[in-house]
Amino acid sequence: MEIIKPSTIAGVMELLPDEQKVLDEMKTTIEETFKDYGFSSIDTPVIEKNEVLFAKGGGETEKQIFEIASDSKDMSLRFDLTVPLARYVSEHFSELNFPFKRYQVGKVYRGERNQKGRYKEFYQADIDIIGHNELSIYNDALLARVIFEAFKKIDFPNVTFHINNRKLLNGFFKSLEIEDSTEVLRTIDKKDKIGLDKTKSLLNDIIGEEKSSKTIEFINADLSNSETLENLDGLANTDSYNKGLEELKTVYDYMVKFGVSDKNIKIDLSITRGLDYYTSTVYETFIDGYESIGSVCSGGRYENLASNFTKQKLPGVGMSIGLTRLFYQLKELGLIEDKKKSEVDIFILPMDSKFNFYAIDVLKRLKEEGKQADIYLEKGKFKKKLNYADKINANYVVIIGEDEVSKNEVSIKNMETGEQFNKSIDNLDFGN
Amino acid sequence: MEIIKPSTIAGVMELLPDEQKVLDEMKTTIEETFKDYGFSSIDTPVIEKNEVLFAKGGGETEKQIFEIASDSKDMSLRFDLTVPLARYVSEHFSELNFPFKRYQVGKVYRGERNQKGRYKEFYQADIDIIGHNELSIYNDALLARVIFEAFKKIDFPNVTFHINNRKLLNGFFKSLEIEDSTEVLRTIDKKDKIGLDKTKSLLNDIIGEEKSSKTIEFINADLSNSETLENLDGLANTDSYNKGLEELKTVYDYMVKFGVSDKNIKIDLSITRGLDYYTSTVYETFIDGYESIGSVCSGGRYENLASNFTKQKLPGVGMSIGLTRLFYQLKELGLIEDKKKSEVDIFILPMDSKFNFYAIDVLKRLKEEGKQADIYLEKGKFKKKLNYADKINANYVVIIGEDEVSKNEVSIKNMETGEQFNKSIDNLDFGN
Repeated sequence: MEIIKPSTIAGVMELLPDEQKVLDEMKTTIEETFKDYGFSSIDTPVIEKNEVLFAKGGGETEKQIFEIASDSKDMSLRFDLTVPLARYVSEHFSELNFPFKRYQVGKVYRGERNQKGRYKEFYQADIDIIGHNELSIYNDALLARVIFEAFKKIDFPNVTFHINNRKLLNGFFKSLEIEDSTEVLRTIDKKDKIGLDKTKSLLNDIIGEEKSSKTIEFINADLSNSETLENLDGLANTDSYNKGLEELKTVYDYMVKFGVSDKNIKIDLSITRGLDYYTSTVYETFIDGYESIGSVCSGGRYENLASNFTKQKLPGVGMSIGLTRLFYQLKELGLIEDKKKSEVDIFILPMDSKFNFYAIDVLKRLKEEGKQADIYLEKGKFKKKLNYADKINANYVVIIGEDEVSKNEVSIKNMETGEQFNKSIDNLDFGN
Repeated sequence: MEIIKPSTIAGVMELLPDEQKVLDEMKTTIEETFKDYGFSSIDTPVIEKNEVLFAKGGGETEKQIFEIASDSKDMSLRFDLTVPLARYVSEHFSELNFPFKRYQVGKVYRGERNQKGRYKEFYQADIDIIGHNELSIYNDALLARVIFEAFKKIDFPNVTFHINNRKLLNGFFKSLEIEDSTEVLRTIDKKDKIGLDKTKSLLNDIIGEEKSSKTIEFINADLSNSETLENLDGLANTDSYNKGLEELKTVYDYMVKFGVSDKNIKIDLSITRGLDYYTSTVYETFIDGYESIGSVCSGGRYENLASNFTKQKLPGVGMSIGLTRLFYQLKELGLIEDKKKSEVDIFILPMDSKFNFYAIDVLKRLKEEGKQADIYLEKGKFKKKLNYADKINANYVVIIGEDEVSKNEVSIKNMETGEQFNKSIDNLDFGN
């Protein structure tokens, strides 16, 4: 028979079981945290209609899409979880309760060019709160609290939320009489990549030196949060600016109240998050000490989630963790290694198949106690069996041979300490 | 703006949050059960290379595939989790420990014609145990135990495993001097659909009346398991028959030993499970009283998992739950309704936004105790707020108004009984 080389397509993350376990646990913990705050799970299909995916117009995204081959060329794989959310909320509008709080952790697809750390298939973990007609600004702080707790629970208690407000930015630019701020925002967005000097010289070209200086001064002040807020007070005086400042203050105050402490927040006026979508709060989240890997959770508030699909006004706020990319980066930094845990707690090892029934009785007793336990049923030398138990990282091996059976006992080996002790099968506790 | 009608592609299952929760919980429970027996999770990409997917030759499956549109036409969506498993085990062979026990719960894709209960995207929950060179027959019984426990934990304790052995069948046909049993097996496989009489008349045409009678008698005996086994003893005498009978006996004995009791097993000689793949044990699983929905978990033992991808001999045994289809059928039977549970345990409801900070303190206290709790932050009349709490099925509503704040209390309403009582915020237990 012809042998075909077994390989995945390029640009996907496929893990061995010990690493998969770490990723699975991160995923589960994040989901549990979302659930604990009353977010509902939804699970939309991976394939969507093209008319849904491109309702907003394709643009850059369209080039990256995985389209399903068919005569009608009318469906593709989703490239994010936000378009499906908009479609879901519109389609099921009358059956949902608003504010609608949903989470979805799922794979999305983009035809990225092959390069390290870029994936064609990757998990996103999204939470959004969608209102009908209105949604209080307090939710923007609640969301940060939920994300803060999720990171804490996956062992990253030290993260910093960089927050800003798009109304504030727009109002500021208006006060400088910059009518079209699109190009300015786009330039600011690149600041971390291109550096401050380059940003400044680009801004000089667009809006002239004076406005450029004021803009740089505005976005780059390295002040405490309270100093920044004080500084912003009265700095401009347009409706948008004042409204934005009020919102930013409220979100900051509520975040602190919700237990995201001041040191985990940075009011950062250089955060812009893309150009069209967000209309108020925007956030990026950085792991302290690992800022170089970029934002690990981003999002913001939008005026209207689903104007392409419904006439209902659906304002919302959402954040998204790029889970696959985060995992890749943590792995690169060596932060996954010590999270790899044992595959099995208790491994039962009959020395000969004639002890199998006895061993199965032991397994059943352990299962009644809710233990994680596995049994070895293959033939082979004792050493080979013990070697396997070691390789799968069993915490305890329960050895069953002639001696043990004759005494109604088992012999328990603690694989970490090497200790070995006998226990009656009627009293299978694993302390010494 | 032009409004695009929001809709999914045809033939996918998309659930509202209350039903999604039931499906999610079934999925999690099944995964937890697999893990508890030492099965490792793997998560292979949804997109695979065509050369991998069709290594065995396409056949019927190829027509159902969702291919990714591209010039090279070289990738498609997986149509099951077995081919990806074969690819995974071959690709990562040297990094895995054998026996390799893996589970995977994931979506697979088939271009089914649109009809009720048939899905283009559906979850499969697979477990397999893969050996290197050999794998003891005892694993076939262990697998049934794991599946039995999974069904018990998702509240279907009454299932029956129909088991058979392909060697036994082949050996029996050989003893009747039926050289090519393919057509005979295919006919038997249809028995439940076409009825016994039609099966018999079809068999008459293929192998003549005498052999047909013997075959029908063989597959259709309605006996107890011990009677069947007794009956089979010496009924034929070919190597394959004897080997198959020995295996079947062992699997039955071990299943009973593993705690799948005799009443949950039916040795059913009419079970054949497809034609090429399985070489020994085959199983189908039925929910007692709902046999008409068909097998809810099927599988069997195979000689060699991955002969297309590696020269290593990898015998294995596996079972698969068609989760989406199962859920659909349970829903149709009305068995999902009472499983729908509350979305949120405790819902905190400040009567005015001036009590928000007080309410957030209450939330933080409840979170410290690990409670599932959510907070309402919108403006609006009290009635509207309470109505929302009712709609999202909160168990308790914590009401915070002028009175409560002045006394450092909260008012707790049990939404099921309607009872309402006050508690100090320092003592937030939810009993009366």
